[in-house]
Amino acid sequence: MDFSPSARSAELTERVRNFVTTEIEPVEPEIHRDIKARREGDGDPWTPSPIIADLQQKARSQGLWNLFLPAEHAGRYAADFGTDGGAGLSNADYAPIAEAMGSSGLAPVIFNCNAPDTGNMEVLLRYGTEEQRKQWLEPLLTAEIRSAFCMTEPAVASSDATNMAATAVLDGDDVVINGTKWFSTGVGHPDCKVLIFMGVTDAEADRKSRHTMVLIPIDAPGVTVDRMLTTMGYFDEPFGHGEVSFDNVRVPASNILLGPGRAFEIAQGRLGPGRVHHCMRAIGLAEKSLELGVRRALSREAFGKQLARLGGNSERIADARIAINRSRLLVHHAAWLLDQGLSREAVSAVSEIKVEVPNMALEVIDLAIQLHGGAGMTDDFPLAQAWVGARSLRLADGPDEVHRNVVARIEFGKYR
Amino acid sequence: MDFSPSARSAELTERVRNFVTTEIEPVEPEIHRDIKARREGDGDPWTPSPIIADLQQKARSQGLWNLFLPAEHAGRYAADFGTDGGAGLSNADYAPIAEAMGSSGLAPVIFNCNAPDTGNMEVLLRYGTEEQRKQWLEPLLTAEIRSAFCMTEPAVASSDATNMAATAVLDGDDVVINGTKWFSTGVGHPDCKVLIFMGVTDAEADRKSRHTMVLIPIDAPGVTVDRMLTTMGYFDEPFGHGEVSFDNVRVPASNILLGPGRAFEIAQGRLGPGRVHHCMRAIGLAEKSLELGVRRALSREAFGKQLARLGGNSERIADARIAINRSRLLVHHAAWLLDQGLSREAVSAVSEIKVEVPNMALEVIDLAIQLHGGAGMTDDFPLAQAWVGARSLRLADGPDEVHRNVVARIEFGKYR
Amino acid sequence: MDFSPSARSAELTERVRNFVTTEIEPVEPEIHRDIKARREGDGDPWTPSPIIADLQQKARSQGLWNLFLPAEHAGRYAADFGTDGGAGLSNADYAPIAEAMGSSGLAPVIFNCNAPDTGNMEVLLRYGTEEQRKQWLEPLLTAEIRSAFCMTEPAVASSDATNMAATAVLDGDDVVINGTKWFSTGVGHPDCKVLIFMGVTDAEADRKSRHTMVLIPIDAPGVTVDRMLTTMGYFDEPFGHGEVSFDNVRVPASNILLGPGRAFEIAQGRLGPGRVHHCMRAIGLAEKSLELGVRRALSREAFGKQLARLGGNSERIADARIAINRSRLLVHHAAWLLDQGLSREAVSAVSEIKVEVPNMALEVIDLAIQLHGGAGMTDDFPLAQAWVGARSLRLADGPDEVHRNVVARIEFGKYR
Amino acid sequence: MDFSPSARSAELTERVRNFVTTEIEPVEPEIHRDIKARREGDGDPWTPSPIIADLQQKARSQGLWNLFLPAEHAGRYAADFGTDGGAGLSNADYAPIAEAMGSSGLAPVIFNCNAPDTGNMEVLLRYGTEEQRKQWLEPLLTAEIRSAFCMTEPAVASSDATNMAATAVLDGDDVVINGTKWFSTGVGHPDCKVLIFMGVTDAEADRKSRHTMVLIPIDAPGVTVDRMLTTMGYFDEPFGHGEVSFDNVRVPASNILLGPGRAFEIAQGRLGPGRVHHCMRAIGLAEKSLELGVRRALSREAFGKQLARLGGNSERIADARIAINRSRLLVHHAAWLLDQGLSREAVSAVSEIKVEVPNMALEVIDLAIQLHGGAGMTDDFPLAQAWVGARSLRLADGPDEVHRNVVARIEFGKYR
Repeated sequence: MDFSPSARSAELTERVRNFVTTEIEPVEPEIHRDIKARREGDGDPWTPSPIIADLQQKARSQGLWNLFLPAEHAGRYAADFGTDGGAGLSNADYAPIAEAMGSSGLAPVIFNCNAPDTGNMEVLLRYGTEEQRKQWLEPLLTAEIRSAFCMTEPAVASSDATNMAATAVLDGDDVVINGTKWFSTGVGHPDCKVLIFMGVTDAEADRKSRHTMVLIPIDAPGVTVDRMLTTMGYFDEPFGHGEVSFDNVRVPASNILLGPGRAFEIAQGRLGPGRVHHCMRAIGLAEKSLELGVRRALSREAFGKQLARLGGNSERIADARIAINRSRLLVHHAAWLLDQGLSREAVSAVSEIKVEVPNMALEVIDLAIQLHGGAGMTDDFPLAQAWVGARSLRLADGPDEVHRNVVARIEFGKYR
Repeated sequence: MDFSPSARSAELTERVRNFVTTEIEPVEPEIHRDIKARREGDGDPWTPSPIIADLQQKARSQGLWNLFLPAEHAGRYAADFGTDGGAGLSNADYAPIAEAMGSSGLAPVIFNCNAPDTGNMEVLLRYGTEEQRKQWLEPLLTAEIRSAFCMTEPAVASSDATNMAATAVLDGDDVVINGTKWFSTGVGHPDCKVLIFMGVTDAEADRKSRHTMVLIPIDAPGVTVDRMLTTMGYFDEPFGHGEVSFDNVRVPASNILLGPGRAFEIAQGRLGPGRVHHCMRAIGLAEKSLELGVRRALSREAFGKQLARLGGNSERIADARIAINRSRLLVHHAAWLLDQGLSREAVSAVSEIKVEVPNMALEVIDLAIQLHGGAGMTDDFPLAQAWVGARSLRLADGPDEVHRNVVARIEFGKYR
Repeated sequence: MDFSPSARSAELTERVRNFVTTEIEPVEPEIHRDIKARREGDGDPWTPSPIIADLQQKARSQGLWNLFLPAEHAGRYAADFGTDGGAGLSNADYAPIAEAMGSSGLAPVIFNCNAPDTGNMEVLLRYGTEEQRKQWLEPLLTAEIRSAFCMTEPAVASSDATNMAATAVLDGDDVVINGTKWFSTGVGHPDCKVLIFMGVTDAEADRKSRHTMVLIPIDAPGVTVDRMLTTMGYFDEPFGHGEVSFDNVRVPASNILLGPGRAFEIAQGRLGPGRVHHCMRAIGLAEKSLELGVRRALSREAFGKQLARLGGNSERIADARIAINRSRLLVHHAAWLLDQGLSREAVSAVSEIKVEVPNMALEVIDLAIQLHGGAGMTDDFPLAQAWVGARSLRLADGPDEVHRNVVARIEFGKYR
Repeated sequence: MDFSPSARSAELTERVRNFVTTEIEPVEPEIHRDIKARREGDGDPWTPSPIIADLQQKARSQGLWNLFLPAEHAGRYAADFGTDGGAGLSNADYAPIAEAMGSSGLAPVIFNCNAPDTGNMEVLLRYGTEEQRKQWLEPLLTAEIRSAFCMTEPAVASSDATNMAATAVLDGDDVVINGTKWFSTGVGHPDCKVLIFMGVTDAEADRKSRHTMVLIPIDAPGVTVDRMLTTMGYFDEPFGHGEVSFDNVRVPASNILLGPGRAFEIAQGRLGPGRVHHCMRAIGLAEKSLELGVRRALSREAFGKQLARLGGNSERIADARIAINRSRLLVHHAAWLLDQGLSREAVSAVSEIKVEVPNMALEVIDLAIQLHGGAGMTDDFPLAQAWVGARSLRLADGPDEVHRNVVARIEFGKYR
């Protein structure tokens, strides 16, 4: 047993952390204020601040770019993309880096490590044809374009994929897409150029062979972003979450990923590392929130004492510290298991962190909000938006209940 | 022991409930969409929809107006204001009516029973001079104007009133106001005309005799609404929560309420019933959220079952039912105790509900959100905003921790 | 709405409370020490202390006897039994009396208000024939004998009554009993003379018409108390919980209660008030535990402060106060609903308290234990045994999960 | 990062686990039944079953003996004691072995790895003189004798050591002991020969230099075991928890450990690894309880379904799996930190696990009890006693609140 990170991981984590602290955090409030001002009438809140592209350039030039890219692809892409190909990190090596990025809402995109682009890039890397990669993966790796993932539907309980109503029907050399998707994160971004769509191709096929994933250019005729959704009042500009309708959208069958009816295969491979990333970022968020909470609680007094030492606050802060530490270890362990191969234990571990971490983060952020008083609910601090992000994560990529069910099923399996 | 409401209370509750269902709920989504559209660029989101005034007129004509007004003032105002004087209800009688109003975010203002106007009206009723009442209470009772309460400050832990930094200094026949307040709810409303301000007059006086409350016209020179605050992304138009600065604001000393140094006396009387109202509305919100959650969970299926019957959902729904019922009884009991006079038991009871109810409501609303999936986070349902409102209530009118401290002190007192 | 108890209830509660404080509490530790000493070798722990009979005599002579007896039977039995017939109290009137008794583990039996005898007496009152009452009810009403209820079985999940394996088969004028029951509370008592047994008579009948209840003298041939069970190390002498086997036990069919196949009818009527009693006693236990905890926490110091004011203790004590108060109101309300007749609302309410109260009591008692340090785990204080009693109550009379299911089903029924 | 155990640790864990499964578990129920029978009158429950000594001999002969002994002492003692000197394991290596032992209440003593003997042996190893070791350590290492640790006092809040009232006063070449201690675990065992006593020597000295630890033969004149305590009804024979009074007990000053006034130094060194052991055993207990719970829940049916799949059970089982896994990692990490040296991070980690693990274990065991129905409360399963053990651990070695305070203080220190 050795809990030390590898030297490579430690060094990159440190560099990312410094970059976040010295380059990103100082400009982040200004970027948020700017979006808010534009939303209140001074312009289009969806146009990204030019600061973002500048910081991306800087991060890229320092080799802090595409670090999420899995080890197995590093060699290959290193040749073509240089640092754009990432550092060839294992999941366990990348985990603390993702935490470092997660402490800021803005940081992931600066390092080209933001969801859903990371997941989409991984899909293209693993399952894309040479042409698909050329067309979409390369500009994603350079952040020239952005992408979205269209899976959840407004009209059905999408946690059960067999409920999915949207269709991807083969018609000669084409595939024809119909249906409505929502919570398509990223479609609000002006650079969003491609959607990975999942729909039913053969409703009669085996439960896991019905669905197909298709690459759809966002400007294909019949694609409409009907509206952008808020989550608890936040649009999350400049990415946002959209409701997208597909009305007889026709694209060549060569846009299909892996092959008709093979969407589940792709989804399975895509989600493990993605959930580790999500969870590690959530831990970064929780850690940052606890820091803000403790600093605030040490800096203000009431009834003749620092807030930190008043009533149950110190015990609650201790509980938050315990909660973060144990969750971090659980995610590190899940990342390490994924690196060993996709065992049942790894499947369980990924579902375990998906339940544990967002709930833990919510409690810690909530405490930090409470320690800030009313200020914690405003946008003077990143806590309110952090809470909303963590709350959304209890639903995104499968609600808690579905993941608990995965864990339970594997547990029951031990005794059969 | 008799848990039946009085006939009067039952009848008014039923009428309010019907009004909410038939008149308010059908138009509420439209009003919210309209505010959102205006915020996104089509106009000023702070101008109230004309539907509101129409509904107020309708409610008033049916005698469903100012029902919060305490029994002791009913006789007196009945003569002057007719139905505007309320129905002379006890706290216990009003409680279920407040719950009925609370199921809709819009309803309280329709019945002229919304915070902070209700609390401000009560202050004027109990402590205002004839002139003060003439000038401010009468137009508040008819909803001609709106008001705000300026107590919390951004720079200090305001849960300890001795931290308060803003001042109200007597100068000849005037009182001069300086300082910055925030979370002044209602200052965003175009009809907001008067602020009840609380500040330090004599920092050397006894802890409970230092502060003074002053009526300040919002257009007095030196008053500036610096900005409107969001709570988790929501501005809560058309009322909103403002940060207000007071720069050498000078008003006649006759604007002082009750007398210099007597703010605590007023605060004490103001807060008991106000907290009962807040809590009963929060119960209405929780009840409505549970209804939405159960309806959704019965109407959607996953994995071959109604969501309501899947995994732990039915047990969680049962827990929510239990939680709402016990909280409601706790508030009814607190209201009834207040009606018996301000005992230590009543003081404890008011703090007890202030801790219990918002936390209970948060759990129930959170469950309802989870049962809705991603939709629960959007504004397609009132749940996200309900959650934010309940979360704010854990800080407004004293954070949980302060109220727990009140309860504990009274508990300790029993054994001395 | 009126939360005051009736004058009758208030007066009896006060008298019971005084009796508990002045007569029972002073001798209770001695009785427990005595049982413990006998268990450790000085005699038979199952022989009740003679103090118990003395105190019963005293309570009876003061009219504090059989107070649980429901109002509808008071008139009838008052004639025959005088004060033995109880006071004719409604459930709501009896609730605070049950709480007063619940603060001491010993008190209920002193007032002849202990489970399962109360439930068994009620069954005999409601469903017994004249002979059955003469033979068993009269000596139970005078505490001359004790009784037990034999329902749960060791070999099956008894929360589902259709799992029940024990049989009560009609054979001519007799009924023949076979099977094994456990958690038959009271069979350890030397005065336990009669068992109410529930078993399957017609496995083919409708789900609710299969079972029969039979009165079985404990000395009937074939009845064996195989062993006494501990719950977390406690035998709960002198009553105890036994495992009882029935081997071709033959009793006259006239021992059947109400009629073959009608056990469910009886169970339904028996359980509502019984659960209210259990819950009110649990509230008395929680209230007593909180008192002990607060007294201890005020009387000891660590790190320069009373324990009560250290860290999160005061907040936890406040939460305990809130939890007790809200639970009490929930039970009072359930009692009041039962008094109005057996509606769906009352059925839900009884299941709600059955979930809420034991869990609440466990939290409060656990806090009190923690405030006592190691002492809380010993028998120097009644807390450890109180905790075990409350924990058992999460299983007895239906586990939490079954009751949550009842509540959920009724909730779902509102939206069909 | 590498979560694999070392080969040595893995091999020993596997061997211990097998020994527990094949040698201990089959005889454990019989040993418990036997103690119970003797307590109920058939003999002295404090005499250990001869099976224990047989199994100890077997474990010792297989080298599964004294495995807790820290690496730094292995070399030295290996020479003298052979396998009795342990395997020279780091804390991280020993952790999974402690878990394997923890799954059975009996196992630790079989491997001579039971508290408090392990802690006492460590103290002698680190701080004992040659004579002290000769006299007491050697027979402890061979399990010839047993020991107890006398620290907590009944009359004061012992979590604050400055409250300690017992004294160890130097008088010429002797040290004179007075006072009363309780929760002295192990004094019930007939082989218990030595007590490590902690008392005040110089009340005027610096807070951390007042106390002295002294080795006291249990048969020294003036030592009396006043009584054995139960924890929730359990005596935990044959070790037990005693109340011990010291009445002018006089022993040579050479019995002092390390030196007068140096008890805190010893305590600090003793407690880190001891807490890791406690916590790992508690994880073993939780893991075993979950296994029992899941097996039961899969083997019984109600309402047409396995209990495991009924209502919220599967989600609760998933939560238990998550809770165990995250706690295990937290303890492994703490063990690993201790192996790196006693940093502030390690101090915090030890307090973190001391809060996290017993509370986690309680929840998991409670779930397992609930899944067993009433049976879970009896001694037919090890769950009831497991729960009591875990509950005691929230008080032993410092209550939760004290450990949370340690964690909070270290957290605050980061921002000063």
